[in-house]
Amino acid sequence: MRTAFHDRLDKLTCQLAAMCGMVAVAMEKATRALLEADLGLAEEVIKADTEIDALRLHSEEAAYALLALQAPVAGDLRSIVTHIHVSEKVERMGDLARHVAEQARRRYPEPAIPAQTRDRFAEMGRLAVVAARQVQQLIATPGRTGYAELNEADDLIDALEQNLLASLSRQDWQHGVRAGIDVALLARFYERFADQAVSVARRLDYAATGTLPGAHG
Amino acid sequence: MRTAFHDRLDKLTCQLAAMCGMVAVAMEKATRALLEADLGLAEEVIKADTEIDALRLHSEEAAYALLALQAPVAGDLRSIVTHIHVSEKVERMGDLARHVAEQARRRYPEPAIPAQTRDRFAEMGRLAVVAARQVQQLIATPGRTGYAELNEADDLIDALEQNLLASLSRQDWQHGVRAGIDVALLARFYERFADQAVSVARRLDYAATGTLPGAHG
Repeated sequence: MRTAFHDRLDKLTCQLAAMCGMVAVAMEKATRALLEADLGLAEEVIKADTEIDALRLHSEEAAYALLALQAPVAGDLRSIVTHIHVSEKVERMGDLARHVAEQARRRYPEPAIPAQTRDRFAEMGRLAVVAARQVQQLIATPGRTGYAELNEADDLIDALEQNLLASLSRQDWQHGVRAGIDVALLARFYERFADQAVSVARRLDYAATGTLPGAHG
Repeated sequence: MRTAFHDRLDKLTCQLAAMCGMVAVAMEKATRALLEADLGLAEEVIKADTEIDALRLHSEEAAYALLALQAPVAGDLRSIVTHIHVSEKVERMGDLARHVAEQARRRYPEPAIPAQTRDRFAEMGRLAVVAARQVQQLIATPGRTGYAELNEADDLIDALEQNLLASLSRQDWQHGVRAGIDVALLARFYERFADQAVSVARRLDYAATGTLPGAHG
């Protein structure tokens, strides 16, 4: 019985890691759609998010079914609760990638961001994808901890967001209100994406060690 | 034994409802701080959020301790998992109230929003506080469902956010880029606050019925 339980838990973990991989791909494509005003790519991301949402629902239901079938012991319980929590965070990361893609679609055929902000968005996108890939690895490798590393990537993205917001507040911002708001909201999507990645790493550290690192969820 | 377990679960539930009440108060004060450029009130909210964060950590640890002490049966398990989930959402609502207060503090002694947007923020604030109070009630009354009701409040806040964003995009917006971004981000904080409230209601419905309403977490 214990083995069947662990087999099913392993399968869930594997599916969740794959879902996180889809989110990394979504963020990579969404960033390209943003940088290159690529409508087709934006629509791909938006469409794929429906699939990610469905996977999450399935993942959560399977976790509850596993709980209901067998009353697991403390460590396994923590794994399942973590699984449900992480599923939600990963889905939320997918939503944020979709938000980036929607913004690219909304402004098409114009670019959604002014040329002077392009490099910073490219870098935020790169960092976000790396973070999602790290999270995928962490999910797939129970027991590995990655909170400190993810936190560092999050700090870098935060700094880029602050830098962008500072650009918008300067007198020499020449792109008007709408572009300013687009940039501010987009920067926030990347920042929130990285926040969720940190939150997942924190959860997984907890499942591994039994101690919650830091204050934030 | 079963009774001791349920007593402890009831106590946790009661504490979580109280925490949600604190969040409702925080959003009420944050909105007043925003509308009246009240620095003292903004700082109260910011300070209280540290307490809310600590309560959440405590609440989550207590839930895990309860899981570890006793392997609960399916229905009770779902209650505890829901409890952990809801704790996080409520803390996040507190964070969003703090973001509103921080924005009021950042622009002090100037008002953080142009006069022409005041009524709409007052209404968003009112709806957000009502939503938080409803969530508090739902937490305190296990078995009651409130998803549909909360969803309606969320739609109203979404509509106000869209209305504000439309104002910013019009030619007659005369408050510049920075104020435009402030309004867009603030509107988003209210919108996210309501989203979390809906998500909590959805979770609680699930705990009550065993069926997840709608797709969103």
